Amino acid sequence: METGVEEVKHGRPLPIARIVAPRSVAVVGASDDVGKFGGRVIHYLQKHGFPGRILPINPNRATIRGLPAFPRVSAAPVAADVAILAVPASSLEAQIADCAAAGVGACVVITGKLAEAGPEGAALQDRVLSIARNAGMRLVGPNCLGIFNPVDRAMLSSSLALEEADYAPGGIGMVSQSGALMGTLLSFGRHHGARFSRCISVGNQADLGLEDFLEYLVADEATRVIGLYIEGLRDPARFRTLLRAARKPVFIVKAGRSEAGAQAARSHTASLAGAFPAFEAICRDAGAVVMEEPQAMVLACDAAIRLPPMPGPGLGLAPIASSGGSTVTFADMLPGAGLRLARMSDATRAVLGRWMPDTHIALPVDTGSFHEGTSGDGLSDCIRAFMADPDVGAVVVPMTTQPDMAGRTALFPPLGREGRKPLLYLMTAGAVGDASREVMRAADFPFFDRMSDAIAVIRALEAETEGRARRHAPQPVRPDGSGPAPALPTGALTEGEAKRLLAAYGIPVTREASAATADGAVAAARRIGFPVVLKGVSRVVVHKSDLGLVRLNLRDDDAVRAAFNDVIAALERAAPGAAEGCVVQEMARGEAELFLGATCDAQFGPMVLVGAGGVLVEFLHDVRTAPAPLSLPDARALIEGLRVAPLLHGLRGRPPTDLDAAADALMRLSWLAVDLGPRLAELDINPLILRAAGQGAIAVDARATLTGEDTP
Amino acid sequence: METGVEEVKHGRPLPIARIVAPRSVAVVGASDDVGKFGGRVIHYLQKHGFPGRILPINPNRATIRGLPAFPRVSAAPVAADVAILAVPASSLEAQIADCAAAGVGACVVITGKLAEAGPEGAALQDRVLSIARNAGMRLVGPNCLGIFNPVDRAMLSSSLALEEADYAPGGIGMVSQSGALMGTLLSFGRHHGARFSRCISVGNQADLGLEDFLEYLVADEATRVIGLYIEGLRDPARFRTLLRAARKPVFIVKAGRSEAGAQAARSHTASLAGAFPAFEAICRDAGAVVMEEPQAMVLACDAAIRLPPMPGPGLGLAPIASSGGSTVTFADMLPGAGLRLARMSDATRAVLGRWMPDTHIALPVDTGSFHEGTSGDGLSDCIRAFMADPDVGAVVVPMTTQPDMAGRTALFPPLGREGRKPLLYLMTAGAVGDASREVMRAADFPFFDRMSDAIAVIRALEAETEGRARRHAPQPVRPDGSGPAPALPTGALTEGEAKRLLAAYGIPVTREASAATADGAVAAARRIGFPVVLKGVSRVVVHKSDLGLVRLNLRDDDAVRAAFNDVIAALERAAPGAAEGCVVQEMARGEAELFLGATCDAQFGPMVLVGAGGVLVEFLHDVRTAPAPLSLPDARALIEGLRVAPLLHGLRGRPPTDLDAAADALMRLSWLAVDLGPRLAELDINPLILRAAGQGAIAVDARATLTGEDTP
Repeated sequence: METGVEEVKHGRPLPIARIVAPRSVAVVGASDDVGKFGGRVIHYLQKHGFPGRILPINPNRATIRGLPAFPRVSAAPVAADVAILAVPASSLEAQIADCAAAGVGACVVITGKLAEAGPEGAALQDRVLSIARNAGMRLVGPNCLGIFNPVDRAMLSSSLALEEADYAPGGIGMVSQSGALMGTLLSFGRHHGARFSRCISVGNQADLGLEDFLEYLVADEATRVIGLYIEGLRDPARFRTLLRAARKPVFIVKAGRSEAGAQAARSHTASLAGAFPAFEAICRDAGAVVMEEPQAMVLACDAAIRLPPMPGPGLGLAPIASSGGSTVTFADMLPGAGLRLARMSDATRAVLGRWMPDTHIALPVDTGSFHEGTSGDGLSDCIRAFMADPDVGAVVVPMTTQPDMAGRTALFPPLGREGRKPLLYLMTAGAVGDASREVMRAADFPFFDRMSDAIAVIRALEAETEGRARRHAPQPVRPDGSGPAPALPTGALTEGEAKRLLAAYGIPVTREASAATADGAVAAARRIGFPVVLKGVSRVVVHKSDLGLVRLNLRDDDAVRAAFNDVIAALERAAPGAAEGCVVQEMARGEAELFLGATCDAQFGPMVLVGAGGVLVEFLHDVRTAPAPLSLPDARALIEGLRVAPLLHGLRGRPPTDLDAAADALMRLSWLAVDLGPRLAELDINPLILRAAGQGAIAVDARATLTGEDTP
Repeated sequence: METGVEEVKHGRPLPIARIVAPRSVAVVGASDDVGKFGGRVIHYLQKHGFPGRILPINPNRATIRGLPAFPRVSAAPVAADVAILAVPASSLEAQIADCAAAGVGACVVITGKLAEAGPEGAALQDRVLSIARNAGMRLVGPNCLGIFNPVDRAMLSSSLALEEADYAPGGIGMVSQSGALMGTLLSFGRHHGARFSRCISVGNQADLGLEDFLEYLVADEATRVIGLYIEGLRDPARFRTLLRAARKPVFIVKAGRSEAGAQAARSHTASLAGAFPAFEAICRDAGAVVMEEPQAMVLACDAAIRLPPMPGPGLGLAPIASSGGSTVTFADMLPGAGLRLARMSDATRAVLGRWMPDTHIALPVDTGSFHEGTSGDGLSDCIRAFMADPDVGAVVVPMTTQPDMAGRTALFPPLGREGRKPLLYLMTAGAVGDASREVMRAADFPFFDRMSDAIAVIRALEAETEGRARRHAPQPVRPDGSGPAPALPTGALTEGEAKRLLAAYGIPVTREASAATADGAVAAARRIGFPVVLKGVSRVVVHKSDLGLVRLNLRDDDAVRAAFNDVIAALERAAPGAAEGCVVQEMARGEAELFLGATCDAQFGPMVLVGAGGVLVEFLHDVRTAPAPLSLPDARALIEGLRVAPLLHGLRGRPPTDLDAAADALMRLSWLAVDLGPRLAELDINPLILRAAGQGAIAVDARATLTGEDTP
C-alpha cells in the first residue's frame, strides 16, 4: 500500500481488493444513452450482473435505467466504495472534490487529456491527485479503461469489450498500461474460451499503478496466472520483488523492445544493457516469461491454466492429424522457433505400428495413413503413446476440414486431461470450424486458430517450465578472492586500471608492464617473454585498434622498438597531449573469444552481459544479459545460451574451450558489479580469450568507466 | 498437355479448362445421405449452384436429390465431361473402366489408399492410370479432394469446406498437394473476404499434376494471383519455366523446409544446397515468393489482389491507431521480421501537427493524442499524408475496441483505395470485432486478425515487389576468360586441380608449387616469397586443418622444412599410403573471408552458394543460394544479403572489403557451374579472402568432386 495516506472516514484507504470488487458504485455522468461513456458504464454494470448497489449521478435526471439518480456523488445516500468518472477534463477536478467530500473509497477515472496530453493536463492531474491524497481516497487512472472483474461480476468500464454477451469467471489476472489493448484482449480471449479473474487498466497511474495491482493479483486466490502489458515501471525494485514472490505463472509483453534492438547494434555496454534487455533479464531471472505479441500472451495465460505444464524444457513435439499438409507445415515451422520434433521411443513406435504401415511410422504422424483411415480409437491410442513418451513435451493436433469434424474434436479434451502434457488443438478453418470451436469451449479446453499462435504458446509454456525451475535454483554464493575493489579514479579507467580491478576479483588478466620509452618497452617484452603485444595508452581513446594503437605478435626487440615508435606517433595524432605511454603485454592465444560486460542498470541495478567476442558482437547481436550476482551454473547457462556456443564447444576438430573458466570469470565479474553498484557506469572485457578445456581463460583487453556516485 | 495421349472420342483429351469448368458431372456413389462422400459431393454441387448437368450414379436408386439416377456411368444418356469418384478402392478399377468406356473426359478420384498407402495401392493406381491413358481420359487424383471453381460454380469435392454458405468468385487460384489443407484454407480465406477463382487438390498426381494446373492458372484470365502448397515436384524444369512465365504474383508454401534447415548445419556444399534452399532460390529468381505458414499465404494472395503493391522494397511502415498499446507492440515486432518504421517527411510532420501536439508527433502514431480525440477527419488527413510520404511502404491500422468501431472501420476502405500503397487494417478483438469485419467484407477490403498475420503479409508483399523487379532484370552475360574447363579426373580433385579449374574461369587463386621433399618445399617457398603456407595433399582427406595438415605463416627456410616433415608424418597417419606430397602456397591475407560453393542440384541444375567464411559457415547458417548463371549485380546482391555483410562493408574502422572482386568471383563460379553441369558434384572455395576495396579477392583453399556424368 501507498505510504503516507491517512485513514480517513470509513475504511480509507480502501484496500485494492475492495476497489476491484466494490459493494457500491457511483457512475458520474450516468445516462440512458449508451452512445455516451457514462451511459455505457451503467449499461455494462447492469448487463454483466453487478450484484452491488449502482448510484447513477446526473444533475438532470431523477432515474436512469430504472435506478434513482442523484445530482452529485455527495447527494447519494451512501458513500460509494468506487465512483467511475468519464466526465470531460474540465469538470474532473470538481467531481473528484465532490467524491472526496462524500467519502468515496476510490475513483476510477476514465477521463483522458491529463498528464499524457501535456503540461496543462499534468497540472490538472496533480491537483486531482492532491485532492484524493488529502482525503485518503484512491485513484485508478486517469486515462484508464477501468476494471473488469468477472469473478465478482464487477465490470467497471466503458470499454466496447463489454458488448460481448458475458465474461465467465476464470483464473487469468491482467494488468495493462493500455486500456484499449486490454479490452481487445478480453474479447480475443473470450473467443478462445479463456476466462479472466480481474483485469485492470491502470492508465496514467496517478495513484495506484501496475505494481500495486500486481501485488494484489499475486495474493489474489481467484487469480491463477498473471498477464501484464507494460510500457514502463514506476518502481522496478518492487516489481522485481513481486515477480519473485509470485507463485503463479506470469506472462509479460513489454512495449519498447524494438528500441533496445536498435541500441544493441552499438558497441557500448551501457546501450547493450539498455532498458529492454535488462527488463527481460530480471523477468527471466524471476521465472516470468516475456513474450512478443499481446494476443499470444493471452493464449499463453490461458494455456497455463487449462493445460498441464510442459514436463521440461528442450523436449520435442509430436504433431498428429489426418492431414499430412498441416502436420508437415507445422513441423517445418519448429526449427525457426527453436523447437523440434520429438524422437519416438520404441514403445511409441510399437503402438503406431498397430494402426499404420511400418513404412509410414514417423513424426509428424498423418493418421490418413492408418490402415482403416483415421479412427477415433487409433488416434486415441497414438496420442496416449505420445503422452507417455519421455521425449515428447507436447502433442499438437493441427486439424483440417474433415467429415464429422466436431465429433472428432470432442475426442481431444478427455485425452488432453488424461495425459500429463499439453495437448494443443489447432482449428485453422474459418466458419466451418466454428462448431469444433464451440465443442472446445463447451468442454472447457483451449484451441488455437493459427499455427503461429500455437508455436508462440509452446515457446511460452516451455519458458514457464524453465522459469519454475529457476525459482528453486540455489542463491549465488560469493567466491573466495572476489574483492574488495582497489581505490580507483572516477571517469574512464586506463586498461591497466581496469585490469587491476578484474584481478582483484580473481579474473585472470594478461601480464603487462608499462613503458615510457622504446628501450623500456624492449626490456618489458624480455621480462614478459616474446611474442608480446604493444598498446598505446590514453584515457580518451576508446577503440584503440581502429587507430592503429594495438600491435600484436611482436617477436623480437626490433619489432617491439618499431611498434613503440609507430604507436606513440599514432597516439599523438589520435589524442594530442593525452598520450600516457605504452603498455607491453603477454600475447595470449586461445581457441575462442568472448565479450564480457558489466553495468549498473538505472532501473534494476547490477547486470552482467556476455556475447560473442571481437567484432562479432557488433553485428551478430548475440548477447545475453543477467542480473548480478550470478551463480556459477547460471553463468555457465548464460554462455551456453549464446548462438556462438557451438564454436565454444569445439567445432570441426577444434578443441572444446574452457567454459568452466569462462563461467567463473563471468560469475566473478557479477560480484564486481554488485560491489561497485551505481559507481560502475560500464566495464567491458573484450576479448576474454578462452583456451582449450582445462587451460583457463584470460582477459586480454578491458575498459571501464566509474562514476562518483555511490547511490543511483 | 501430356504427350502420347491420343485424341479419342469427343474432344479427348479434355482440356484442363474444361475439367475445371465441366458442363456435366457424373457423381459415382451418389447418395441422399450427406454422411457419405458421394452424398456430400452431389449435395455440394447443388448447394453451390452448379449450372451444368448432374448425373447421379447409383445402382440402387431411380432418383437422388430429385435428379434421375443411373446404375453406371456408361448407362447415363451423355458422356459426362467429368466423373467424380469417391468409391472404395476395391471397386475403383471397375468404375474407372466404366467411365473410360462411357467416354468420360476426366475422372476426379477422391478415393484414397492408392500409391500413398503402399505397393498394393501403387499397383492399383498404375492399373487405373493405364485404363485412363488407353482411353485418352484424364485423371485428377487419386487421393485428392477435387476441384473448387467459384467462378463457374463448379465445386467438385466432398470437402467439408463446402459447408460454408457460399464462395463468391474471385482471383486467387490455388493448387495444393494436400486436399484437407486446401479445404481449410478456403474456409479460412472466406472468413477474411478473400475470394478464389479455381482451387485444385492434385492428390497423388497419377496423371494431371501440380505443373499441369499451374500452367492452366498462369494462362487463366480469372486467376490474378496464384497460391501453391507443394510437397514435391514431378517436373522441376517445367515448374521453373512456368514460374518465370507467370505474369501474376505467385506465393508458395513448400513442405520440407525444416529438413533442409537440419542439413544446412553440415559443411557439405551438396547438403547446403539441399532441396529446399535450391527450391527457394529458383522461386526467388523467378519472382515467386516462398512463405512459411499456409494461412499467411492465403492472406498474402488476397492482399496482392485487393491492395496496391508495395512501392518498393526496404521502405518503412506507418502504424497509426487510437491505441498506443497496439501500435507500439506492432512496431516492436518489426525488427525481428526484418522490417522497420518509416522516417516521416517534413510534409507528413506538418500534417500531423495540425491534429496533435508537436511533442507527440512520432511513429507509431497514437491518435488518442489528437487535440480533440481521434476524429475521422484527423485520421484521414494523417493517413493521406503517410500515403504520400516517400519513405512509407505501407500504412498499418492495428485497431482496438473503441466506440463506434464499425463506423470508424468504414473510413479505411476508401482511404486505402485512394492511396497507392497497401493499407493493412487489423481487428484483433474477438466477437466484438465481428461487426467491423463485416464492414470490411461488405466494402471488399482485407482485414487481419493477428499482428503476426499482417507482418507475414507485409514481408510477402515486399518480396513480391522485389520479385516483380527481378523479372525485368537483365540476363547474365558470360564474362571474358570464363572457361573452358581443363580436362580433369572424375572423383575428388586435389586442391591444385580444383584451383586450376577456378583459374580457368578467371577466379584468382594463390600462387603455389608442389614439393615432394623438404628441400623442394624450401625452394618453392623462396620462389613464392615468404611467408608461405604448407599443406599436405591427399585426395581422401577432406578437412585438412582438422588433422594438422595445414601450416600457416611459415617465415623462413627452417620453418618450411620443419613443417614439411610434420605434415608428411601427419598425412601418413591420416591417410596411410594416400599421401601425395605437399604444396607450398603464398600466404594470402585480407580483411574478411567468404565461403563460395557450386553444385548441380538434382532438380534445378547448376547452383552457387555464398556464405560467411571459415568456421562461421558451420554454425551461423548464413548461406545464400542462387541458380547459375548469375549476373554481376545479382552476385553482388546475394553477397550483400548475408548477415555478415556489415563485416564486409568495414566495421569499427576496418577498411571496406573488395565486394566487387568477390561478386566477380561468384559470378565466374556460376559460369563454371553452368559449363560443368551434372559433372559438378560439388565445389567449395573456403575461404575466398577479401582484401580491402580495390585490392581484389583470392581463393586460398578449394576442393571439388566431379562425377563421370554429363547428364543428370
